[in-house]
Amino acid sequence: MDFTSDNAAGVHPALMHALAAAQDAEPQGYDSDRWSSRLDGAFSDLFGTACRVFPVPSGTAANALSIAALVPPYGGLWCHAEAHVEVDEAGAIPFFTGGASLMLVPGANGKLTPAGLDEAAARRRGDVHQVQPAALSLTQATESGTVYTAAEVAALGHWAKGRGLAVHMDGARFANAVASLGCHPADISWRAGVDILSFGCIKNGGMSAEAIIVFDDRLASSLPVRRKRAGMMPSKGRFAAAQLLAMIEGGLWLENARAANAGAARLARVAAGRLIHPVEANSLFLRLDAAEREALRAEGFSFYDWELEGPDAIRLVVRWDQSEQALARLESALGRLS
Amino acid sequence: MDFTSDNAAGVHPALMHALAAAQDAEPQGYDSDRWSSRLDGAFSDLFGTACRVFPVPSGTAANALSIAALVPPYGGLWCHAEAHVEVDEAGAIPFFTGGASLMLVPGANGKLTPAGLDEAAARRRGDVHQVQPAALSLTQATESGTVYTAAEVAALGHWAKGRGLAVHMDGARFANAVASLGCHPADISWRAGVDILSFGCIKNGGMSAEAIIVFDDRLASSLPVRRKRAGMMPSKGRFAAAQLLAMIEGGLWLENARAANAGAARLARVAAGRLIHPVEANSLFLRLDAAEREALRAEGFSFYDWELEGPDAIRLVVRWDQSEQALARLESALGRLS
Amino acid sequence: MDFTSDNAAGVHPALMHALAAAQDAEPQGYDSDRWSSRLDGAFSDLFGTACRVFPVPSGTAANALSIAALVPPYGGLWCHAEAHVEVDEAGAIPFFTGGASLMLVPGANGKLTPAGLDEAAARRRGDVHQVQPAALSLTQATESGTVYTAAEVAALGHWAKGRGLAVHMDGARFANAVASLGCHPADISWRAGVDILSFGCIKNGGMSAEAIIVFDDRLASSLPVRRKRAGMMPSKGRFAAAQLLAMIEGGLWLENARAANAGAARLARVAAGRLIHPVEANSLFLRLDAAEREALRAEGFSFYDWELEGPDAIRLVVRWDQSEQALARLESALGRLS
Amino acid sequence: MDFTSDNAAGVHPALMHALAAAQDAEPQGYDSDRWSSRLDGAFSDLFGTACRVFPVPSGTAANALSIAALVPPYGGLWCHAEAHVEVDEAGAIPFFTGGASLMLVPGANGKLTPAGLDEAAARRRGDVHQVQPAALSLTQATESGTVYTAAEVAALGHWAKGRGLAVHMDGARFANAVASLGCHPADISWRAGVDILSFGCIKNGGMSAEAIIVFDDRLASSLPVRRKRAGMMPSKGRFAAAQLLAMIEGGLWLENARAANAGAARLARVAAGRLIHPVEANSLFLRLDAAEREALRAEGFSFYDWELEGPDAIRLVVRWDQSEQALARLESALGRLS
Repeated sequence: MDFTSDNAAGVHPALMHALAAAQDAEPQGYDSDRWSSRLDGAFSDLFGTACRVFPVPSGTAANALSIAALVPPYGGLWCHAEAHVEVDEAGAIPFFTGGASLMLVPGANGKLTPAGLDEAAARRRGDVHQVQPAALSLTQATESGTVYTAAEVAALGHWAKGRGLAVHMDGARFANAVASLGCHPADISWRAGVDILSFGCIKNGGMSAEAIIVFDDRLASSLPVRRKRAGMMPSKGRFAAAQLLAMIEGGLWLENARAANAGAARLARVAAGRLIHPVEANSLFLRLDAAEREALRAEGFSFYDWELEGPDAIRLVVRWDQSEQALARLESALGRLS
Repeated sequence: MDFTSDNAAGVHPALMHALAAAQDAEPQGYDSDRWSSRLDGAFSDLFGTACRVFPVPSGTAANALSIAALVPPYGGLWCHAEAHVEVDEAGAIPFFTGGASLMLVPGANGKLTPAGLDEAAARRRGDVHQVQPAALSLTQATESGTVYTAAEVAALGHWAKGRGLAVHMDGARFANAVASLGCHPADISWRAGVDILSFGCIKNGGMSAEAIIVFDDRLASSLPVRRKRAGMMPSKGRFAAAQLLAMIEGGLWLENARAANAGAARLARVAAGRLIHPVEANSLFLRLDAAEREALRAEGFSFYDWELEGPDAIRLVVRWDQSEQALARLESALGRLS
Repeated sequence: MDFTSDNAAGVHPALMHALAAAQDAEPQGYDSDRWSSRLDGAFSDLFGTACRVFPVPSGTAANALSIAALVPPYGGLWCHAEAHVEVDEAGAIPFFTGGASLMLVPGANGKLTPAGLDEAAARRRGDVHQVQPAALSLTQATESGTVYTAAEVAALGHWAKGRGLAVHMDGARFANAVASLGCHPADISWRAGVDILSFGCIKNGGMSAEAIIVFDDRLASSLPVRRKRAGMMPSKGRFAAAQLLAMIEGGLWLENARAANAGAARLARVAAGRLIHPVEANSLFLRLDAAEREALRAEGFSFYDWELEGPDAIRLVVRWDQSEQALARLESALGRLS
Repeated sequence: MDFTSDNAAGVHPALMHALAAAQDAEPQGYDSDRWSSRLDGAFSDLFGTACRVFPVPSGTAANALSIAALVPPYGGLWCHAEAHVEVDEAGAIPFFTGGASLMLVPGANGKLTPAGLDEAAARRRGDVHQVQPAALSLTQATESGTVYTAAEVAALGHWAKGRGLAVHMDGARFANAVASLGCHPADISWRAGVDILSFGCIKNGGMSAEAIIVFDDRLASSLPVRRKRAGMMPSKGRFAAAQLLAMIEGGLWLENARAANAGAARLARVAAGRLIHPVEANSLFLRLDAAEREALRAEGFSFYDWELEGPDAIRLVVRWDQSEQALARLESALGRLS
């Protein structure tokens, strides 16, 4: 009964069918096929605005390539101190940008705020001796399992644009955020100032493709060549494109995210007294002492200790395909602990 | 009737079945699954020596990550002037290595020779003002559709090792070379001095995974982190590993390569007078004037003009799954031209 | 009356004479001259151990090249959150290393401690998803104007070596630290575990040369080529070497540092109630309200506001050649404020 | 009697005086002093157009920073196959640009021509798989000791601008070229399409400063921060600026270059039958067999064998301060050989 990460979840059967269907095609190399050529249109429909779409093989790739399009080698990126780009991507941002610096800002519940950014900015100078920021990166849903409201994203977008900064959103769990808020995807992306979005699919039922969504066409100019030289332009692009289309064209992305969020909400109710952060998407952070953690593991539950939140913290992630049995048993086990 | 590139070929049904089977698993993230854990063993069996295996999503990625493990940011790489790493990877080598230089050497029929390397080396100095080579990269089968014999690879390996250089092999069409030579894969890899091999699968019936094969364990130490920070460590590694296993465990890789090579040999027979290079794998380079090229295209054949060989050159590539009908029609059309 | 930075100080007359003497030489390019060839020996004598010396044109260059020799492109560097490499070098570390990450650790009075490092390390994991540290960088004297004792450096060196980490020391004000402690330079460098030292001269009466001192010869292997490709191997190396020799061969470096430290101590006595940090070298950090700052500036004193310490903080730096008049007037002015 | 390189020449007394004068200043850090602030104006006067000037410590630095301002990390640079940036800068261009590729073009006597560039361009494609050029770099005077005429530079500038490429000139010996042609410096720089010029001083009597001259202000925007993060913004910028001003404000640069050129012309007359290239600046390339080379060396002459031109080639470089005695003796020795 695995609650370690939505990374490990299964691939939705609809995507397996889409792969088989892409197999039947008159083959065309790279992005010349009819699946790849439908991507821009399909995502433009989804977001209600013209956008450019670049499939890539991982969330790290999506973030790092997106940010490389926004931040020069000598520039900086404002982000949360616990952002995935800082904590879990093994230095991909300095690699892809050619040396850009992450400028870390603390913030409660995994969220940045204009006030927190102001405070961090006040400690910096604008001269040539210091790295100057070129962009702001938000994570939605956050690494703490919370969700920025549309107003919160817009306030941060406004803060950034007022300082000449581009805005990137790490949306590895963007679907969970949209499902949680019940909003239009535009409300927390381009309408709120987001320039480039890492649109996650793999955690949400995909196999091997995430999408970079560029809302400002001028920012897309370097991405084809950056993607190629990063070894991320697939020879058989139709199999990446087919996954992405299957995920969004029938609404599967929201359906899967809703299922995962609902599971997390169930667990949150029985563990309310132990929550470190509000549970607004599909992750929970709890305080458990060593004996409690051992007891849960002895019952067959897998999960990560979460050092970033202190020695008594754990993380539970609910997947889109988490079994009812596993959920019910964990619900019961957490209830007994409380 | 497409003869542009084996890149665009279909995915072999055995691999589609393998993907479906990997779907049934108890999910485990990243490389913790039972497919990924079988890779080192399966390739060690294939090559007859212990090796380490790292799946990556493209041939460019395989080459660039491999070379980054061998060449420091300030080092150089000897390679053929028409090597894929120079001509067709959009600068991936300087990107992944952090600035290493390609040191280009001409050579007939796409092949390097010790004599050609000696001549190039004689024009360079060993001082701190010049980039110093750290490795040699061979392409097997070559970009010209020829194949190094085992003795030729060994002579180049010997040349490199005598100068303290590591040896990389770009084996995007390694299967075609083994099929062509009828040798053991070890004969043209580790036994001949190759340290790291980019083992191609995608052109040969794969979907989205190539393999980096490291024959000297000490050279593998940086690859896990380099692969992660390059965004190439898949969340669901089982789907990459399953493809690679399906390709090699039943001998499919050689079967597919033999089919492609045989098709190229058929075409070579009828176009013998026009060949720019010997046809030893699955590519042909021909001289055709503008009217001849137009005639072929008018009959429905697709292929690339090949500027590198001059204004009257074209390339034809035969795929593992090229239809008998397309082959027979092209055979006939070329025969009429001759 | 300028107290902004020792960066701007004059060049000591002994160095001007040394430059004139180097002019008389039978010219030899690069490092082939008789001044350059004396560097290793002269610094080995000074430090009481064999060392390698590489002149570079700035403190940023010294730090960045040194760290590039210790940290791979995918590695990390533990350093103080206010270290010069983080705050004032415009991203030179990720540039020279090819993407390494600074891992920031807070600490009182600009100092790292083993306990503080332990706490930071406990929040990190050792897996492939996180940047793994390869070295520790200390600043001596610190950016807060304090000085690590020999025992403190040794404890940090021990901490690093126990974790397989190399140790770099940013010694832009190393002379001030040695002068302050009255120790042998070895006591706070190689004997305490430091592998590479950025030995500052420019702030201390030099014109245009700092020295990288490498105490472990194996770590020096990449530095000649790294220095060349960074554009820092001077055509006329004798003029850099001559400066460094003039600085150390007669003890000038300590004489100058003592003068600067003594001036800072004088100011510290009259401003004792306003000090943010102990004054142990040649910098002072004070709290002054806006009116007080304006009053000092109106009297002709120049100095920086120091945002890092809050809105009411300033920094004063005393130079080796600060005039008695300026010092006495500032002493008096600060006394009137208190 | 050294004829190895103008790199090793002495520093002109006027520059030593200028350094002493800069010492007297009321100190100001970095570029805030009155020497640095005069640079833009002085060079704008010299070139007859507004320009921006950035002092750097070496020719390698000048070239690499200039090119980094023109070519993105994923771009390419057309240059001669024997250009200094390719042959003698240890990979500085890929380092400073973050991975850009040198695109080498052969050409007689060290010169590029539009026809040679056309031929090289015809072998390349414009797609995403190949590195796309962003700039053209010329060397003036060339590495072969020849000089592009103003018309030749203009033709190459026209070629580049017609393809959307920026133009860089490596002018390590720009003074020798202007002296040779007797033209206005504008004629072979901005009027002929050059965007950024590496203006050499060190070979021509300077100590430790070269100048990057930017003729298009928009191209200068990244240079201040690039220079700082490369460790090339000197703490005491006045000493670099003072050298550059002393070199150009009284015409010293042309006087020195004329002296060096005249010496080379003298030698060329007596060695006319052995010249590999026309002698148009201060370098000569000769064919000498082993016995002849040994004989010259036995007489006390130092010079480099020049592998790039074959096993029997040598290079002689005449300095601005070459002694009459050394010149006369070499003239005589070469005469005896002929």
